Amino acid sequence: MHLDQYREKPHMKKKMEVFCIDSIFDELFPICRSIAGPGIRESFSILQKYMPLDIKAIATGVRLFDWTAPKEWQLHRATLHGPDKKIILDTEISNLHILNFSVPFKGVVDLNELQNHLYSIPNLPDAIPYVTSYYAPNWGFCIADNQRKKLLPGKYEVEIKTEIQDGYLNYATCDLPGDSAQTILISSYLCHPSLANNELSGPLAMLLIYQKLRQLERRRYSYKFLLAPETIGSIAFLAMEGSKLRDQLLGGMVLTCLGGPESKISFKLSRSDWVGAPTVMDRFARSMARLDSENFSLREFDPTEGSDERQFCSPIVDWPVIQAAKTVYGCYPQYHNSLDDKEFMSIRSVQSSAECLFAFLKILECGDLKLTNQLQGGEPQLGRRGLYPNINGPRTDDFSNDTVYDGRRLLNAILNILSLSDGRHTLIEIADKLNISPIELIPAFEQLVINQLISAGN
Amino acid sequence: MHLDQYREKPHMKKKMEVFCIDSIFDELFPICRSIAGPGIRESFSILQKYMPLDIKAIATGVRLFDWTAPKEWQLHRATLHGPDKKIILDTEISNLHILNFSVPFKGVVDLNELQNHLYSIPNLPDAIPYVTSYYAPNWGFCIADNQRKKLLPGKYEVEIKTEIQDGYLNYATCDLPGDSAQTILISSYLCHPSLANNELSGPLAMLLIYQKLRQLERRRYSYKFLLAPETIGSIAFLAMEGSKLRDQLLGGMVLTCLGGPESKISFKLSRSDWVGAPTVMDRFARSMARLDSENFSLREFDPTEGSDERQFCSPIVDWPVIQAAKTVYGCYPQYHNSLDDKEFMSIRSVQSSAECLFAFLKILECGDLKLTNQLQGGEPQLGRRGLYPNINGPRTDDFSNDTVYDGRRLLNAILNILSLSDGRHTLIEIADKLNISPIELIPAFEQLVINQLISAGN
Amino acid sequence: MHLDQYREKPHMKKKMEVFCIDSIFDELFPICRSIAGPGIRESFSILQKYMPLDIKAIATGVRLFDWTAPKEWQLHRATLHGPDKKIILDTEISNLHILNFSVPFKGVVDLNELQNHLYSIPNLPDAIPYVTSYYAPNWGFCIADNQRKKLLPGKYEVEIKTEIQDGYLNYATCDLPGDSAQTILISSYLCHPSLANNELSGPLAMLLIYQKLRQLERRRYSYKFLLAPETIGSIAFLAMEGSKLRDQLLGGMVLTCLGGPESKISFKLSRSDWVGAPTVMDRFARSMARLDSENFSLREFDPTEGSDERQFCSPIVDWPVIQAAKTVYGCYPQYHNSLDDKEFMSIRSVQSSAECLFAFLKILECGDLKLTNQLQGGEPQLGRRGLYPNINGPRTDDFSNDTVYDGRRLLNAILNILSLSDGRHTLIEIADKLNISPIELIPAFEQLVINQLISAGN
Repeated sequence: MHLDQYREKPHMKKKMEVFCIDSIFDELFPICRSIAGPGIRESFSILQKYMPLDIKAIATGVRLFDWTAPKEWQLHRATLHGPDKKIILDTEISNLHILNFSVPFKGVVDLNELQNHLYSIPNLPDAIPYVTSYYAPNWGFCIADNQRKKLLPGKYEVEIKTEIQDGYLNYATCDLPGDSAQTILISSYLCHPSLANNELSGPLAMLLIYQKLRQLERRRYSYKFLLAPETIGSIAFLAMEGSKLRDQLLGGMVLTCLGGPESKISFKLSRSDWVGAPTVMDRFARSMARLDSENFSLREFDPTEGSDERQFCSPIVDWPVIQAAKTVYGCYPQYHNSLDDKEFMSIRSVQSSAECLFAFLKILECGDLKLTNQLQGGEPQLGRRGLYPNINGPRTDDFSNDTVYDGRRLLNAILNILSLSDGRHTLIEIADKLNISPIELIPAFEQLVINQLISAGN
Repeated sequence: MHLDQYREKPHMKKKMEVFCIDSIFDELFPICRSIAGPGIRESFSILQKYMPLDIKAIATGVRLFDWTAPKEWQLHRATLHGPDKKIILDTEISNLHILNFSVPFKGVVDLNELQNHLYSIPNLPDAIPYVTSYYAPNWGFCIADNQRKKLLPGKYEVEIKTEIQDGYLNYATCDLPGDSAQTILISSYLCHPSLANNELSGPLAMLLIYQKLRQLERRRYSYKFLLAPETIGSIAFLAMEGSKLRDQLLGGMVLTCLGGPESKISFKLSRSDWVGAPTVMDRFARSMARLDSENFSLREFDPTEGSDERQFCSPIVDWPVIQAAKTVYGCYPQYHNSLDDKEFMSIRSVQSSAECLFAFLKILECGDLKLTNQLQGGEPQLGRRGLYPNINGPRTDDFSNDTVYDGRRLLNAILNILSLSDGRHTLIEIADKLNISPIELIPAFEQLVINQLISAGN
Repeated sequence: MHLDQYREKPHMKKKMEVFCIDSIFDELFPICRSIAGPGIRESFSILQKYMPLDIKAIATGVRLFDWTAPKEWQLHRATLHGPDKKIILDTEISNLHILNFSVPFKGVVDLNELQNHLYSIPNLPDAIPYVTSYYAPNWGFCIADNQRKKLLPGKYEVEIKTEIQDGYLNYATCDLPGDSAQTILISSYLCHPSLANNELSGPLAMLLIYQKLRQLERRRYSYKFLLAPETIGSIAFLAMEGSKLRDQLLGGMVLTCLGGPESKISFKLSRSDWVGAPTVMDRFARSMARLDSENFSLREFDPTEGSDERQFCSPIVDWPVIQAAKTVYGCYPQYHNSLDDKEFMSIRSVQSSAECLFAFLKILECGDLKLTNQLQGGEPQLGRRGLYPNINGPRTDDFSNDTVYDGRRLLNAILNILSLSDGRHTLIEIADKLNISPIELIPAFEQLVINQLISAGN
């Protein structure tokens, strides 16, 4: 193994990215996306400028396992006028006002009847909820509860100009090849309109991770990025490309809710882990949460909530896919309503998520190589290699060798790694064993490789 | 699997049973049983009216592994007269007064000599103990310690009219066939004279369980019931029928002490469990104790105490047999003395034990079938099957589908079962995983089977 | 198995040993040993009187894995004279004054320059440290810090008369054959000059253990004793004899620091145990620490400290070797300085260590034989063998049989051993299971073997 193979190329420019994702956010936020239609295609086009996305299209009606590729939905405009003819709701103001996938409707209805088509959140009276009805034909509006309470009895004029028609279900992928065909899947979803943490933080973190990985001089693994409408998109990907990817899939990670105020990344472990068979992704996630608990934590798999990992980890598919989130869906009041905006989701938080996840991927790249002593029989004579003090007495008790005074931190790491480099332990297992961050072991690990005392291999 | 196959036939009559076992108790209680002789045969005859018992007889002297079928013992009458010729003890009053299996003896003895033949319990001065000497020839009386203390010096007239002679060792079995030849053994013992909780509660609970099982429309397993004198009877059964039963034995349960005031059933696990290899019985017992801790608890196997499970779980036999008890032998002062009567053992407690154990057997019948998703690739589209809300927003957060408002209890159960139905998990394992009673999962389980989303098989 | 085979011969004379190791200590203590040279050979000669040591010699320069057999070092005398010509340090007073393996040097040096060659312990101002420089040529003196502080500026006359020349690296072995060729290695080291607990306690405890083992009528295993200079000696042994011994090595034990005030023996477990694969030695050590915690405790393997187990447990060698110590190196202030003398290390403590370790070896000899019931089907009828009370009632509740009144301690042990003698459990596993010292089970174990109810085998 070349020690420097996973080092970043020097010309990586951090500043650029910050501004970059900030403005990309602003471009993406106002678009009225749904699971199929022009909104998602427009979004892909914007991202394609920064990442060579390959956009796939599946015709309406195509069978996708137990599902069917849906028709496209397009919002032209939806308005609600009150008894006094004044405009009350208008998707030109917020595209959350429309029930997502609402059928077109034009007519005058009583307040009583209208109420059946209104959605609001009584305990968040200023928030407009995000509501969908993808698979049952309904029309409706989402409205702040405060506004709803002020509606007076009378006739309301509804004009919902949407189109539901045959077209395509789209998703997009991007490949980043590495030394091996073994692939890590990084996926996120893109189908919510104007929601920040629970939507755009995922694709934006993905973009940053893509840039960081692309700038590595070498990658051990190949990477496949996937952006799709949630649920139906990952099911479509599984149906179209799943069996092809399966054989070379090392593991995967679903990105969601990576821009909130919480500081740690929490990994939702895979279904396989849940049933007692942790995958490589679970093992690394568990190790990092144990050894670097300031940055990482864990959630158990749970099929009753979540994002596309529910599909990747459905019991017959059973892929080694975890999910990474920060401020988790369902656990913050801004979830799925108009309060989940750029103020709640900070660009800086998305950035730090991408950095943490990139560090995680770097450990994933080298942490599971088995280390083996290159010498037989007893310890190596470290002293003649400058790795042990040559005089042994009270004066050298805290020296790692004749010059390094560090409380024997380096020497102890060297002796521990040597002892555990029996061809059965990896760097991360050694870190686990020593209850130390893998990163702290790197200097000793490097000395041992340079001195040809250990080798690293599969 | 037919979901209703384990339902009880509607014509089962509970009231009848209550009276039934109450009067059966009264018939059985006064009989002076021992390990062999007319007492046990008379007891079998009474029970045979309610259960088609097949009574086996093994001639005295037949070798039974390390043991030998004993002679029969019959008590005609035993009396003790004092120096004043007044009668002190009389087995017509209580058959506990005689040392069980006492040899015949007629003679006049000094109080000093008599004391060597008296058995009492100083710290329970009103109780007559139950004492046996099956395999060493002795004569003796059991007496309340208060009465013993009043005995005056002088000559005592002993008249013990018992017979010990060649005859038969008896035990009785009853078969209840099911769909499979795999058999569950349910055993209890019948050799104690006039003791209630530690004796008659077992056969009476067995009778109720037999009636309940018999009234099921179908049974997955076959059942074999065994009533035998304790220890020597189960050894005889093992010697005569053990190797035949072994191959089709799924598991077994020894019934003892099921009528006391304690409310929970406690299972004494098998020897195999003790040495780290839990059997199917142990696994179900452990699950029920964990998931339904109000009704079930556990005891570790212990070869130094217990009943016939000591034989079934002897190390070479090593059957998957647990023991079920409520107010456990040795742990209550009434144990093995005249205070263990119908007042201490309530008929209602025997009834509730039988109900609990019957519920346990029903879970045993279906809880270990492996559940498998019938669809490939991703989650099924539950919405079009009426198993998921069609509109998703804050209003439907607590709906399991468009109509069921239950905090998503049903939906979560459906999603959890689906996720765990990977062909490797059973209903009880799923309940374990979810830390929920298996009974609570049944509605979701039924919906999934009816919708052909999962199948259940071996 | 003959129950008495591990009994000690009656003519073992304890008194003799006490005086013996006391005077042997006095002979060995003043010798100026190093890793190679006349000091170690003289020490072997003294021990050879009590143990038939086979002394091996490896010529300087011979390659030993990553190491090379060193030259010999011999101290004639080293002195330091002060500016006033008075003698300050003299190895005739304490051979700790010389830097071990110091090169010869004769010259006059300034105090400033001299300071670079002095070693002392500021926080133990009266102690002369033990300092070595085996593999880098240096000259130097070790001095009490109090004395060092009094040194006045001026010219110091150094005269170090040592010789470093080609010769031999020595180590010594001794074999004690047993019934089987499977061998237990018992090793200690002999290279420190005039240090008591951390040096001579090991060889002296070894001597006592050798005598005790030799006096057993039979031994199941063979024993190999090894005395060598620390590190390089065990590496040499591994290089010369390791592959031959490996195949028949059952396990081993490094003896060190066995004479201090601490009362328990603590076992440092093997590397293999550390990585989750406990060896037979680890299992026994763990059992004894759990079951006899007054006498035994455990330390985890740690490659950053220790003695020759670091070589025996280096990852490619990976022998099943534990280390036994009492007052452990590095954990007491007297370690590696002149305070580690006969006052700190008591002869009585060395003796009790040897007794504990001998008891450990006896359990090692028989504790892992698998026990098997000799009867089939149910429990044996213990009553007719005098192993169970023949009358059962309240009076016999605390009797193990008709005569032994012990709260059923013997009977419970018998029933437990019988239940666990399934051909898969050993005596020590049974003791583990029952959470009882293996020694307490011996009476029941003997009764069962004598009555041919169980057999013990591999």
